[in-house]
Amino acid sequence: MTVNHLLGPLFTDLYELTMAAGYFNRRLLDAATFSLFVRNYPPGRKYFVAAGLQDALEELESLRFSRDELAFLRETGLFSSDFLSFLQKFRFTGSIFAMSEGSIFFANEPILEVTAPLIEAQIVETFLLNTVGFQTMIASKAARCVHVAAGRPLIDFSLRRTQGHDAGMKVARSTYLAGFAGTSNVLAGREYGIPISGTMAHSFVHAFSSEVEAFAAFAETFPDSSVFLIDTYDTIAGAREAVKVALEMKKEGHALLGVRLDSGDMVRLSREVHELFAAAGLSEVKIFASSGFDEFKIKKVVEAGAHIDAFGVGTNIGVSADAPFIDIVYKMVRYGQRDVRKLSPGKVTLAGEKQVFRDCDKNGIYRSDTIGLRNDTLVDHLPLLEPVMRKGRLTRPHPSLAAIRDQFARNFEALADSFKSLNTAAIYPVGISPRLKRLQVDL
Amino acid sequence: MTVNHLLGPLFTDLYELTMAAGYFNRRLLDAATFSLFVRNYPPGRKYFVAAGLQDALEELESLRFSRDELAFLRETGLFSSDFLSFLQKFRFTGSIFAMSEGSIFFANEPILEVTAPLIEAQIVETFLLNTVGFQTMIASKAARCVHVAAGRPLIDFSLRRTQGHDAGMKVARSTYLAGFAGTSNVLAGREYGIPISGTMAHSFVHAFSSEVEAFAAFAETFPDSSVFLIDTYDTIAGAREAVKVALEMKKEGHALLGVRLDSGDMVRLSREVHELFAAAGLSEVKIFASSGFDEFKIKKVVEAGAHIDAFGVGTNIGVSADAPFIDIVYKMVRYGQRDVRKLSPGKVTLAGEKQVFRDCDKNGIYRSDTIGLRNDTLVDHLPLLEPVMRKGRLTRPHPSLAAIRDQFARNFEALADSFKSLNTAAIYPVGISPRLKRLQVDL
Repeated sequence: MTVNHLLGPLFTDLYELTMAAGYFNRRLLDAATFSLFVRNYPPGRKYFVAAGLQDALEELESLRFSRDELAFLRETGLFSSDFLSFLQKFRFTGSIFAMSEGSIFFANEPILEVTAPLIEAQIVETFLLNTVGFQTMIASKAARCVHVAAGRPLIDFSLRRTQGHDAGMKVARSTYLAGFAGTSNVLAGREYGIPISGTMAHSFVHAFSSEVEAFAAFAETFPDSSVFLIDTYDTIAGAREAVKVALEMKKEGHALLGVRLDSGDMVRLSREVHELFAAAGLSEVKIFASSGFDEFKIKKVVEAGAHIDAFGVGTNIGVSADAPFIDIVYKMVRYGQRDVRKLSPGKVTLAGEKQVFRDCDKNGIYRSDTIGLRNDTLVDHLPLLEPVMRKGRLTRPHPSLAAIRDQFARNFEALADSFKSLNTAAIYPVGISPRLKRLQVDL
Repeated sequence: MTVNHLLGPLFTDLYELTMAAGYFNRRLLDAATFSLFVRNYPPGRKYFVAAGLQDALEELESLRFSRDELAFLRETGLFSSDFLSFLQKFRFTGSIFAMSEGSIFFANEPILEVTAPLIEAQIVETFLLNTVGFQTMIASKAARCVHVAAGRPLIDFSLRRTQGHDAGMKVARSTYLAGFAGTSNVLAGREYGIPISGTMAHSFVHAFSSEVEAFAAFAETFPDSSVFLIDTYDTIAGAREAVKVALEMKKEGHALLGVRLDSGDMVRLSREVHELFAAAGLSEVKIFASSGFDEFKIKKVVEAGAHIDAFGVGTNIGVSADAPFIDIVYKMVRYGQRDVRKLSPGKVTLAGEKQVFRDCDKNGIYRSDTIGLRNDTLVDHLPLLEPVMRKGRLTRPHPSLAAIRDQFARNFEALADSFKSLNTAAIYPVGISPRLKRLQVDL
């Protein structure tokens, strides 16, 4: 199995295809530009982290209707033979401007713009929203966790609770991109080169006649990489058993890597457990904590002085539990020679092909952004949307995940802490260029 | 692409494999039984709908470690050659008792029990939780929507916002299973045989010089299956344009199927739009509504007397927005000849191989359930867990999705309305058999 297996053009809402048939019927074949952006911040958030571009581009590059797919569409009875013949030759031949994965961006800023013959630009909507939206949402929440963990490593433990298997893979990638240290997901380790992590569950302890026997068996199997789960019966009693086994390991020239707490009062237990190990001359044994962590709970236990060296973050990051979707949309902003905008209540869209310009201070800290027309020139501003695809072909190889992760770390340092606090009221300033503003008024 | 492509055994948390290595090292090769169940109801829910069994069984039947997968595990440096040789011959040879997809079940009831050599039973944990958990969560929320829609068809519109592409496919299947009428997801239509639905978006209207022109173009392409989206500029003005085009269609012997509202006050607008059509002698034109619907909003507009014939339900069902995960767990309940239970705070597990017995009244209405030992006999009770796999092989062919959907509909009729109300306080009675209780006490 390859992870980024291609979905094909039927991974779409039917209306993309019925609209395409309508366009075809009336020969609306001019180029259109669509803009992908997030309308609003989910509760408590004030920035987003772009992710999912590589998957999006790989799919677009290879988008074709197979014979079987066309046969299925024919059977629906909805489409003319002429239109189906047209689809047979369908390729994505458009151009894409996009922010690099790992970019920090803000509400209403386009993160990707597609310019392509109308039918092509329309058909890819559902897929682009799904792929970029989900990964961006997860990366954005992961960055929040990383921020409050203040240097403590975080491991993605979410695989069992993600919304399906593709989500499990993308959560591993998106959280790693945003600074997580690794994942429990073995397949993601193989596919993406992410460090994998994990040791034992309660069932392991149950399978042995006693907890200490389970620890000893595990230590024998993994003499230098064991982390014992110590809360199966009672955390403090479990810690005492772990100390015994750790002392045996030390005698034999090995070392217990750590213990994991998975229930109870994490602040108190982590401190008591650390003291038990320290008293036995084993203060180097790390304390891992899991069970219900997210950015709020991490912050709380860190601030309360927990002695926790690393966190396993599971369900809450895997489904972005406090904000399980983002209001990401893909809107037509230009067709042929005509700029267009939507005016439905609460859903206004900025017309025109755009660029996002970022102003940084002399230390490189982000000061403000300006959404402008694509061909605006703003002196001393950094344009964030780059041409990543021209005429259906990549303009450059995909950066490695490691490179994206490094770039994200640099980007995140350039974002002032005021925007990173959980539930911050601060709003990063995003303006509109005079020419873009004039275009809206003129329409 | 096939949807249910196999994931392989690396789709797992690393600890499943490190535990397996520990078991192997100590020759813990006896049979174990693990129980899959949901600990708690998400807010406002009082029942669940089982889904995901077919995917689970298909994966287990074919679970093998390929040469590449073993090479990756070797490269991690964690595993002995002996253990890797053992994995080379790995097959799932276990037995499974499970509830049929479409069954109604309750908190703490096992919906699936695996009995297999310990390593086999352990390795499949992550996958089973992911696959059964997500689909069950979605089917359970879908049933709530179907209930409050009181016969009005619901269409899954969620594909653009689901958490990845696998989620998009499974949402289409799980919602259809629980009574939705169709999906916008074309690929799900092909893969699962679900009716597909969808017509036009705002971009279609924007691509034409005027709204009426867009409607006319669509009507020309789909003379008998058009639904016009009428809120691009102003819903009432859009409705008037739609009436004009619908009258033209009628003259030519065709018929407008419906119009779609996607913003604004759905109660008022739906009534006004229907009146406009009725006044023009077009009262048969259906009114579809979309935009932010879930069970709460459907109930609200239905009770307020909206004139809505069908709903498109998108993001909120696609991610189960108000409850984006369920507390589903997979716990060892027996190893070898020993029944086991977990006692961590708030996480108690019932030991022993179990069965769920259902008592129905003379009309077939569910009265109460009893969780018992597998070999309990409860007179006049229906055992819900059936043997679906023996020694790694299916005991029967998978039922069709249509058959599952029909069976769900019958099951749902047998559940009293008191448990179906949103935010109900009623709790369906689930007891424990005397023998199962005694076993817990004895441990």
